[in-house]
Amino acid sequence: MGLGAKMICAVILAGGKGTRFWPLSRENCPKQMLNIVGEDTLLRQTIKRLHKFISSDNVWIITTDILAQDIRFHLKPLGADADRIRFIIEPSGRNTAPAVALAAITLSKLASDSVMVVMPSDHIITDTKQFQNKLRLAIEAAEEGYLVTFGIVPARPETAYGYIRSGKPLAKEPLAKGPPSASVKNSCNEIFHAEGFFEKPDLKTAETFLRQGNHYWNSGIFVWKTSKILEEIKRYLPSLYRGLQKIGKLNDLRNETFKELYSSLESISIDHGVMEKSRDVLVIPADFGWCDLGNLTALGDVLERDERGNILQGNAIDIGSENCTVIACDRVLATIGLKDTVVIDTADATLVSSKEMVHEVRKVVETLKRNNREEHLVHRTVERPWGSYTVLEKGDRYKIKRIVLHPKARLSLQVHQHRSEHWVVVSGTARVTRGEEVFDVQSNESTFIPLASKHRLENPGLLPLQIIEIQSGDYVEEDDIERFDDAYGRT
Amino acid sequence: MGLGAKMICAVILAGGKGTRFWPLSRENCPKQMLNIVGEDTLLRQTIKRLHKFISSDNVWIITTDILAQDIRFHLKPLGADADRIRFIIEPSGRNTAPAVALAAITLSKLASDSVMVVMPSDHIITDTKQFQNKLRLAIEAAEEGYLVTFGIVPARPETAYGYIRSGKPLAKEPLAKGPPSASVKNSCNEIFHAEGFFEKPDLKTAETFLRQGNHYWNSGIFVWKTSKILEEIKRYLPSLYRGLQKIGKLNDLRNETFKELYSSLESISIDHGVMEKSRDVLVIPADFGWCDLGNLTALGDVLERDERGNILQGNAIDIGSENCTVIACDRVLATIGLKDTVVIDTADATLVSSKEMVHEVRKVVETLKRNNREEHLVHRTVERPWGSYTVLEKGDRYKIKRIVLHPKARLSLQVHQHRSEHWVVVSGTARVTRGEEVFDVQSNESTFIPLASKHRLENPGLLPLQIIEIQSGDYVEEDDIERFDDAYGRT
Repeated sequence: MGLGAKMICAVILAGGKGTRFWPLSRENCPKQMLNIVGEDTLLRQTIKRLHKFISSDNVWIITTDILAQDIRFHLKPLGADADRIRFIIEPSGRNTAPAVALAAITLSKLASDSVMVVMPSDHIITDTKQFQNKLRLAIEAAEEGYLVTFGIVPARPETAYGYIRSGKPLAKEPLAKGPPSASVKNSCNEIFHAEGFFEKPDLKTAETFLRQGNHYWNSGIFVWKTSKILEEIKRYLPSLYRGLQKIGKLNDLRNETFKELYSSLESISIDHGVMEKSRDVLVIPADFGWCDLGNLTALGDVLERDERGNILQGNAIDIGSENCTVIACDRVLATIGLKDTVVIDTADATLVSSKEMVHEVRKVVETLKRNNREEHLVHRTVERPWGSYTVLEKGDRYKIKRIVLHPKARLSLQVHQHRSEHWVVVSGTARVTRGEEVFDVQSNESTFIPLASKHRLENPGLLPLQIIEIQSGDYVEEDDIERFDDAYGRT
Repeated sequence: MGLGAKMICAVILAGGKGTRFWPLSRENCPKQMLNIVGEDTLLRQTIKRLHKFISSDNVWIITTDILAQDIRFHLKPLGADADRIRFIIEPSGRNTAPAVALAAITLSKLASDSVMVVMPSDHIITDTKQFQNKLRLAIEAAEEGYLVTFGIVPARPETAYGYIRSGKPLAKEPLAKGPPSASVKNSCNEIFHAEGFFEKPDLKTAETFLRQGNHYWNSGIFVWKTSKILEEIKRYLPSLYRGLQKIGKLNDLRNETFKELYSSLESISIDHGVMEKSRDVLVIPADFGWCDLGNLTALGDVLERDERGNILQGNAIDIGSENCTVIACDRVLATIGLKDTVVIDTADATLVSSKEMVHEVRKVVETLKRNNREEHLVHRTVERPWGSYTVLEKGDRYKIKRIVLHPKARLSLQVHQHRSEHWVVVSGTARVTRGEEVFDVQSNESTFIPLASKHRLENPGLLPLQIIEIQSGDYVEEDDIERFDDAYGRT
């Protein structure tokens, strides 16, 4: 492979807030954690796609404080690899240039000559084999000192993506960086100098780009040496670089000084801050089934449509609609005679939007936030490393939950000051700790946890345990919980 | 009042199936049982509106077998009057002529010279005072042997209603039926001969009608002597009349002979079958805020709109929609940039339809029926005379319900063969009969009803009792119930 010489690290940008995909996404379950196409979530697919080149020890996820724990839980299905993946925590979202810079300074301390593969966590790539071939090429070119990006061969005059214009092929001119390697030489029509970056164009410009042929969608995937990107940041974003130097000197990236320094960094994209200015940018045209789902209408590009152009999923009944995206859950969702409309139903929230105005969904999320609602924060069913819970109903002084525990999983030993709990076992066997007692509760039996009593729920069996919990008390919020031990690091 | 001479009976047509208002309406809760405008449901408002002239003993509700019990429960809030209202059961829906004929033959046995006021159970009338004045006039005219109907002064060239054309005023010609009474004489510009009935017109015709001025919306409210309508049925619907004569001879209107006879009657509307043909039809122009909500788009005529023409109810968040009807429940329903769209959300089903195609909702109901679903039959919360229950979740081998019992209410003594039940009292006090025991369960306590154990739930208190019931067993459907006594006549 010729890639053994340097350490290759993946930096996966996973700080997305999930606003544009509401109500499918929530603050604790943004787009990258959704399973939209293929067999896994976007984030887990992104990680799996890199396995061939990059060991899990060298995969870094950069995300926010709020999301880090949820993402850790989310990675569990990757098995032993999940624990080897490392996290870089952004104390606040500052766009991609500060995130990339923070990752670069972190990696440079471990290996100054490492190669970074920077990629979003929420893009779709369907042709993994081509992606891996192009990535190999990109890594080789990056090792020679270039900033390398993939330009996606446009399928249509899309106005929702940025574009890159390609210039001369790399191998047709004398290389500033020394003689090209054999495989780069053999790929002379596969790598080009980038001549310009263009923000989302209007339709006319996009049509011209498509006609001209040497314009590609900006994939937002970048490959470069850590030392090279730090050089370019120093040159083109000097003030950000100065802030970064200060951060580099800190020993602890969790304290207040770090937060202050980071939040003072210029909020700018790496495209705008570096790629558009640098003279060492290469673009590798690619056609590996890439898609950046910018908002809910983009589902129309990746999910199968019927003969009327509709996408219908879940318990949906449609009569005569055209060009609509209807995602139902298990509740009945009936649509009649709609055109160019997106309808998304979830257990606790429904969105109906014209495709044209779907970007306004952020205003809905803002309204929910302003009204102190919870529908923008979490789904009704919350996945946890030990299983999941679903709030079936919340009333005055009571709350009903369905709790599912994976085989052998256990909740933390805990106590509530303001509520007692009734547990009815619906299937499986529950091992219950209550005060000093430990006893098993079988299917169709129940038990009672008095207020202020130390307790634990555990599944000793080989099948999932399902219980209905009825909380009763003056205050039945999630924060009335004191944990005494926790297998999931939350004490 | 001059109305004392004859018995005046109301016949309220309440057999509507509730298809066109789905998902607000269900088979056991059709449109007439919905509270759409005003302070009560359409059916209860219809009954209350008649109080002034017609005592509850003379109110007859004609409906189907399926609906009768639900309507009886539904009338309970009317208090002592509710029990005095009588029912005529149609064994199957056969349009309005057979229903009116059945009511006429029933009434004629009690008092051959009674006056019938026939009206639908699901119309809106906002000006009760004017309605009552016009009704008085109609009853007087009916006593003189006319078929009297109200013609609603049209507010717009509506194409969803039938029209009546008025001819000469009643008092300007010699009366065939003898001299008019004083009040009829004083109302010579208030009563006209009907010159023609017109089915729903196209827009051009409706505009012409509006311009001509002597055209009124057909209100579907009729006043006549029982003997007179029977005469006219005999004349214009002779075959239906012959079937009716056979029904008149039956002593029991619940047996198979009746069902067979009734289902063989011609299915035709009273408008088409009699009113269009009879030469003794009078029309009283009226403007008492009448509205027949033909389908969900008609909500736009009776509910308040905002400045963009939208109706927004419940937990709805709208961004930039126009001319839409959005009825949310307590789940969040967000709408963005919609036009001329109806969005109705209920606990277990959502409808999104263009206004233009909303009549196609019947196809949705047919699909639900075909798929053996329940969303067209009942709401998630089912109102009962003793309170209500809500299915919070149904899973494999379990079902969770919230049950609310009115103060002093009790369920029947019952037994289930396939399920046991856990009851957790959330508020109030439950009195539980279990086998031979009777005991009280307080708020935040629970109890267990084993399979095959005779039991009863009762609210001995003065506040509502709220319990969570978790059913567990091989079979958790509503029909696994054997009742031993029942305050509500269901044993």
